Amino acid sequence: MLYSKLFGKAKKSSKAYDSVNAALLQKAGFIDQVMAGVYTYLPLGLRVLNKIENIIREEMNKIGEEIFMPSLTPKLAWEQTERLNTVDILMKTAPANKFALAKNATEYILNPTHEEVVVPLGQKFVLSYRDFPFALYQIQSKFRNEPRVKSGLLRGREFRMKDLYSFHTSVEDFKSYYEKTKESYLNIFKRLGLGKDTVTVLASGGSFTEDFSHEFQTFCEAGEDTLFFVKSKKIYYNKEVTPSRAPKVKYKEKKMLKRQNVFGKGIIGVGELAKFLNIPIEKTTKTLIFETDDGRVIAAAVRGGYDINEDKLRKAAKCKALKLASEKNVKKITGAEVGYAGIINLAKNLEVYIDESVGERINFETGANLTNYHSINVNFGRDLPLPKKFYDIKIAKDGDLNPDTGEIYLTMKASEVGNIFPLYTKFTDSFNYKFIDRDGREKPIYMGCYGIGSSRIMGVIVEKFHDSHGIIWPENVAPYRFHLIGLDLKDKSVSEKVHKVYKVLKEQNQEVLFDDRVDVSAGEKFADTDLIGIPYRLVVSKKTGDKIEVKKRNEKTFQLVSLNKLV
Amino acid sequence: MLYSKLFGKAKKSSKAYDSVNAALLQKAGFIDQVMAGVYTYLPLGLRVLNKIENIIREEMNKIGEEIFMPSLTPKLAWEQTERLNTVDILMKTAPANKFALAKNATEYILNPTHEEVVVPLGQKFVLSYRDFPFALYQIQSKFRNEPRVKSGLLRGREFRMKDLYSFHTSVEDFKSYYEKTKESYLNIFKRLGLGKDTVTVLASGGSFTEDFSHEFQTFCEAGEDTLFFVKSKKIYYNKEVTPSRAPKVKYKEKKMLKRQNVFGKGIIGVGELAKFLNIPIEKTTKTLIFETDDGRVIAAAVRGGYDINEDKLRKAAKCKALKLASEKNVKKITGAEVGYAGIINLAKNLEVYIDESVGERINFETGANLTNYHSINVNFGRDLPLPKKFYDIKIAKDGDLNPDTGEIYLTMKASEVGNIFPLYTKFTDSFNYKFIDRDGREKPIYMGCYGIGSSRIMGVIVEKFHDSHGIIWPENVAPYRFHLIGLDLKDKSVSEKVHKVYKVLKEQNQEVLFDDRVDVSAGEKFADTDLIGIPYRLVVSKKTGDKIEVKKRNEKTFQLVSLNKLV
Repeated sequence: MLYSKLFGKAKKSSKAYDSVNAALLQKAGFIDQVMAGVYTYLPLGLRVLNKIENIIREEMNKIGEEIFMPSLTPKLAWEQTERLNTVDILMKTAPANKFALAKNATEYILNPTHEEVVVPLGQKFVLSYRDFPFALYQIQSKFRNEPRVKSGLLRGREFRMKDLYSFHTSVEDFKSYYEKTKESYLNIFKRLGLGKDTVTVLASGGSFTEDFSHEFQTFCEAGEDTLFFVKSKKIYYNKEVTPSRAPKVKYKEKKMLKRQNVFGKGIIGVGELAKFLNIPIEKTTKTLIFETDDGRVIAAAVRGGYDINEDKLRKAAKCKALKLASEKNVKKITGAEVGYAGIINLAKNLEVYIDESVGERINFETGANLTNYHSINVNFGRDLPLPKKFYDIKIAKDGDLNPDTGEIYLTMKASEVGNIFPLYTKFTDSFNYKFIDRDGREKPIYMGCYGIGSSRIMGVIVEKFHDSHGIIWPENVAPYRFHLIGLDLKDKSVSEKVHKVYKVLKEQNQEVLFDDRVDVSAGEKFADTDLIGIPYRLVVSKKTGDKIEVKKRNEKTFQLVSLNKLV
Repeated sequence: MLYSKLFGKAKKSSKAYDSVNAALLQKAGFIDQVMAGVYTYLPLGLRVLNKIENIIREEMNKIGEEIFMPSLTPKLAWEQTERLNTVDILMKTAPANKFALAKNATEYILNPTHEEVVVPLGQKFVLSYRDFPFALYQIQSKFRNEPRVKSGLLRGREFRMKDLYSFHTSVEDFKSYYEKTKESYLNIFKRLGLGKDTVTVLASGGSFTEDFSHEFQTFCEAGEDTLFFVKSKKIYYNKEVTPSRAPKVKYKEKKMLKRQNVFGKGIIGVGELAKFLNIPIEKTTKTLIFETDDGRVIAAAVRGGYDINEDKLRKAAKCKALKLASEKNVKKITGAEVGYAGIINLAKNLEVYIDESVGERINFETGANLTNYHSINVNFGRDLPLPKKFYDIKIAKDGDLNPDTGEIYLTMKASEVGNIFPLYTKFTDSFNYKFIDRDGREKPIYMGCYGIGSSRIMGVIVEKFHDSHGIIWPENVAPYRFHLIGLDLKDKSVSEKVHKVYKVLKEQNQEVLFDDRVDVSAGEKFADTDLIGIPYRLVVSKKTGDKIEVKKRNEKTFQLVSLNKLV
């Protein structure tokens, strides 16, 4: 490819980008942002994306068959799995204006995942035990109604993904396939250049199971995930599901003090409150009121300094979706404005979920359920009964202990590159998809689903492999193998020589990006080359004479070789 | 590929399908319908789709660069081109439930075409005259809010498409590129096996221009389009834009009769009415009331037997979008219930567009603008003034004349396989995208856009190439080249032989689908083979001995050849 003809050349930009990958990929001309979380892949970027997806495709073809499902699905299918009204990243389509409305008013679901399509599909074609197991995958664009999108390609509203679904006649067969996909995934990440830094991590299994799913996480400073590592067990947890015990707080005081309601108008956050009351933050309590998808209103509390883990809370409260209660409901439940909820004086029949971090404290603070008031010197057993059960509903943080081993977790930043989910019969049951066994009887079908975000991987690779000058692509995913640079191109003999090198490399079916620009300085060309990050830089100039200067992007030294030798 | 392992095998189905392509592609296991106009591509279908798209890609790479734009776009971009509130197939996205709404309430446009993305993209990267012309294309899924979807892959709500956009610094340069794409397109259709039956056709240039666009139409009995051919000029028009003159109706009567209002309760359609009044349908008049996007209410009339062409009417009325007026507005304008509108006694300031077919009649009928009443023996000049101008706002039909040559059109059915649009500065102006010329001045940029529906082509190919037994794929797009059938597979020596043939063909990198099913009868295997339609059928059985029986799908005779000769 002649760089002079390429659409999307490297550019200087003083724009503020939300991440290293967004900055480098946009400055180097790989992608262009259409809006937050939505990008166009320019010619260079599309080459990288295709290479990533082809590696995934080659490995997937060993364990499944490729199909291509649509993005639109009838709402009915999502009703059938009870996800229509609960999945909070779900988008629908609707006519965009009154003329469109007059033509067709129906709304559809824009799939973020395809269980609602693949299960009915399997049901139409495969029913006999003889045709199991089978596994179908696709590579395509997915849509998520993300509230905050950031970090370039790491989190998008529209993104590329491979999703695989497997169907089995027994749990054992499913589990053995599940293990096989783990190997397959690790193989993919190895080929993508991420092998040695990618680990298998326990993550949320979703609202319908107590089981974990497995994520593949690549260690990465810019990663949006935090891993919690239990060294003695060699287990990594994703922060979102890390079982956690708060480190105990030592108190000198032994005596319960007199409970008091303190007036603190407009003081709401626990940090501000601790300061105002002149107590350690660990003595404060954060209480929040939630509404569940099945119409309940519940309260949940953690020790100051912690946040509530909605995923853990959802499991504790056995519901499918949660959101913070409306102002109206908060008032109704607590009798106070938002911000003054606490765990004392609540209605007896209210469900309250209290984190274990809230216990074992003396003379602690909690909202007074009275506008502008906070109760201090609160004690279990005296001011409120000790709850029947303490939960683990907090988001784990640095310093927390693993409840099983008592070890303090080691933590590290990482970025998710894939995940696999045991679905068991959750979706096949929803569609009443059964198989006919040898004995003629209908039996349940076990399922797994397995995702890899190919566009996200492109972002992770850039986050992992770059220096202050630009990207350093691993060879298997680089847009081209060689970046050929002609300098002194106004000199006819040099120009002829470099064009000949280009021609010969092309004849050898080598992937070459050839910077043939005549009016651009050597300095700018070198800077662009480093920014774009192709593995091998080849320079032909007056100085290189009959030879070609070869330098690897990630090395400092170069050598002069002849064209014959290069070939 | 072993057929025993393939997902999506041929199946018997007594279902009613909406078209030949839907029936054959679904029975043969190429596609599966998720809902009307929305399909999953099964492994066989995806292979065909990929082959079609790769042929398109190879030809496009000669005249443009491949990129990949997103499906989601901010509404603002569609406001800027004034298409947000006028394009009647436009879909938007919205959060699907209250939990999603709480996370992110923003709505986006789901692109049916990408001018709103590609123009701002060009604007970010290419501004200097030196870098023009440039052309960008992509192949991806598109979304249209189609009211009626039918004909299998011929018309979808979600479908695959290649779209190319070119940018030029002069009309001349644009026009020369436009001609180049015509060649490129004809080349693509040739490679797809559609060459000799595909012609270039004049079609609508859109609401913003009087120019025609060009469609590529393949003659096809099942085609949804009708072409109107002017033999002397070798011009094909798409029915939707065919300029038409109605054949004159001869009347014996010369004398104007007395106008009368006839009571005909509930008689609305012109056919029923003609019968009721015992007059030829040509004496009736169809009058409809429309609302325009710019807030006007207008009337339009054609002779009975014709329909109003909204596209022509839109141009005549100089508006961007039209819809039938609400009941309320019809009543307000005509003073009558819907169904009794006519061209007499209308308010003087109402805009009325009357087709030329309405003229040159004597004693004709028109709605009385009075509920349940029809006026007969109406005459221009006496009962209403002769309009200043007659329009051509009708949908052309068989027997119509070309207004220029006076020839009766030849008509034929066809199916659209591609279209190219001159956009000129319509979209670059919307975004104020200009280039800096040699002289340092800003000047307008000329654009074209060029589409090919790859999934639709798959449907057209099946409509064109099939017989009563199944599909007959052209070689370049067939899912496999060879369909190898093993019969008598319980016989060990036959089984070994056919597996050897499969192995040898695979080693030769031949594309082979191998029907290795042991328990399926020869009859069923042959039927499946014919249904699937792979070009070469190879049979190995007891009967074929050392040889292989080779038969082309579209021929009746077969020959016996040795494996060596086949290879």
